[in-house]
Amino acid sequence: MYKEKILNILRASRSAFLSGEELARKIGVSRTMVWKHIKALKRDGFGIDAVPSQGYRIISEPDLLRQNEIKTGLKTRVIGKEIHIYPEISSTNTRAMEMASDNAHAGTVVIAETQTGGKGRLGRKWISPKGNLYFSVILRPEIPLHKAPLITLMGAVAVASAIRKACNVHAVIKWPNDVLISGKKVCGLLTEMSAEQDRIRHIVLGIGVDVNMDLDVLPTDVRMMTTSLLSETNKKINRTALLREILRELDHWYQVFLHDSADMLKAWENLNMTIGSRIAVSGAGDVLEGLAQGVDTEGRLIVKLDDGTTRTVAAGDVTIVKR
Amino acid sequence: MYKEKILNILRASRSAFLSGEELARKIGVSRTMVWKHIKALKRDGFGIDAVPSQGYRIISEPDLLRQNEIKTGLKTRVIGKEIHIYPEISSTNTRAMEMASDNAHAGTVVIAETQTGGKGRLGRKWISPKGNLYFSVILRPEIPLHKAPLITLMGAVAVASAIRKACNVHAVIKWPNDVLISGKKVCGLLTEMSAEQDRIRHIVLGIGVDVNMDLDVLPTDVRMMTTSLLSETNKKINRTALLREILRELDHWYQVFLHDSADMLKAWENLNMTIGSRIAVSGAGDVLEGLAQGVDTEGRLIVKLDDGTTRTVAAGDVTIVKR
Repeated sequence: MYKEKILNILRASRSAFLSGEELARKIGVSRTMVWKHIKALKRDGFGIDAVPSQGYRIISEPDLLRQNEIKTGLKTRVIGKEIHIYPEISSTNTRAMEMASDNAHAGTVVIAETQTGGKGRLGRKWISPKGNLYFSVILRPEIPLHKAPLITLMGAVAVASAIRKACNVHAVIKWPNDVLISGKKVCGLLTEMSAEQDRIRHIVLGIGVDVNMDLDVLPTDVRMMTTSLLSETNKKINRTALLREILRELDHWYQVFLHDSADMLKAWENLNMTIGSRIAVSGAGDVLEGLAQGVDTEGRLIVKLDDGTTRTVAAGDVTIVKR
Repeated sequence: MYKEKILNILRASRSAFLSGEELARKIGVSRTMVWKHIKALKRDGFGIDAVPSQGYRIISEPDLLRQNEIKTGLKTRVIGKEIHIYPEISSTNTRAMEMASDNAHAGTVVIAETQTGGKGRLGRKWISPKGNLYFSVILRPEIPLHKAPLITLMGAVAVASAIRKACNVHAVIKWPNDVLISGKKVCGLLTEMSAEQDRIRHIVLGIGVDVNMDLDVLPTDVRMMTTSLLSETNKKINRTALLREILRELDHWYQVFLHDSADMLKAWENLNMTIGSRIAVSGAGDVLEGLAQGVDTEGRLIVKLDDGTTRTVAAGDVTIVKR
């Protein structure tokens, strides 16, 4: 609390020094307390100039996600009421699934600066260097099991909308769970759930967004299909602001989804680039090629094959066929 | 191994004594080893008469499930290749879900003599005194998420068939997951799963069968709707033989289901008592009343309401309406 106040006062004074006495008076604590909080801020990674007889000033800020900053002005209804941040973790999804089993509140968000065992769909890895966003949201929707795949689509709507707003780039959704910019992947979503035969206990929506990462750290095959917001906009992105925007959009679209999933699907269709494309879908041992015609009420992709028949695909990897 | 051999030889000789020397010669170990195995059998709960100069004979067998006996003549393809037995456990489903997360083989069976936190559907308790069967089977079917509820129906087919064969009583299925005799519940099934949006990681099929329990231990409201095989047949049931029969039926119907779920559903329809009945279904806040007409390809109950419209129910509690 006091630490945040000191931080905000120092930020406001920019390059000008503020004496310990002044800080102490402004927030109503002793100079010893001010000095202790300054030490804590330094431990958090802030560069703070301390010059005897002049006082303190901030010279650099750490590029770290901080709970209080994320929550500032967040004003969501469900998502992000509780936030846990880890400098390093195996997987935010795994941690969130554990927390959900231990009765964590719906809307709890688990964030990590880096993941040592980041997960993608179908047991794949999600390479997770520092500088990006990796977070998972615990949800407890009262929906039947067959509606669960729509949660991933809802998440994609939120991320694509937030990226468009926060970074002013044309993010689009590729079915089922990728967000692309200029044909390259900038975000992936991984939904995991625990369920009974006819009831969802909890769903964890995991989101990885490539923000400020150096694309050179990626293996060549992954790098060819991947981009970052830094690379697309040519400027370093404020991760906190982007995360806040995504949480707000999630909060909004989750309510829309619960109220009427058709409204959420309309938004998905407006943001997606798969429908109308000629695609190849691989999965479950075979490959289908045809025209992606739409998604059904459960989020499955409807594909019109060349023989005129229609197939509905629940899972698979989509490639856009160019010819 | 030797312990089982000694046990089988003692059983075969019935009330006649067998000397330690004879036993040692028959299985090819020392008399000291025979004596050690006899001690182990006593620890397992066998009553063994040991009379100097005459030898050994069995006077009582413990009523405990034993791995080797269950596996004798089991001959299943997948189910029960690996069996874990606990004298007492919180919940076989919970333990099986943990084992599944730790990569236990498909078909692994977790059994307990009694459960301290036995689980029913929708967060309910499953009262688990000694004398019954409580077990969970780990499955890894490669099926889409919306087919998952069929696993419960498959389990009910296996249990009802096995009870009919092993106990010669008319067990029937009540949608979605109960097995009844004379209108009272004798078995409940609880399916739990871990899944991604479009892929099932593992399903645990939990089965509780009321076999030899004393119905008086149940609270009155539960007792009124519950029966046991002992109570229906007026004789004590061999739990090992019944369990073996259920595992065999599970092994069979699981293969049928994977090959063509419609064939499994036909068997379900033949064994069920819900279709054709006038029912009330409660769930998700409202109650429907009408005629149960059938189940669809995903195991949902089709109900024809009195106004002539048809509704499909994925989850709920069914009551048969008598009038």
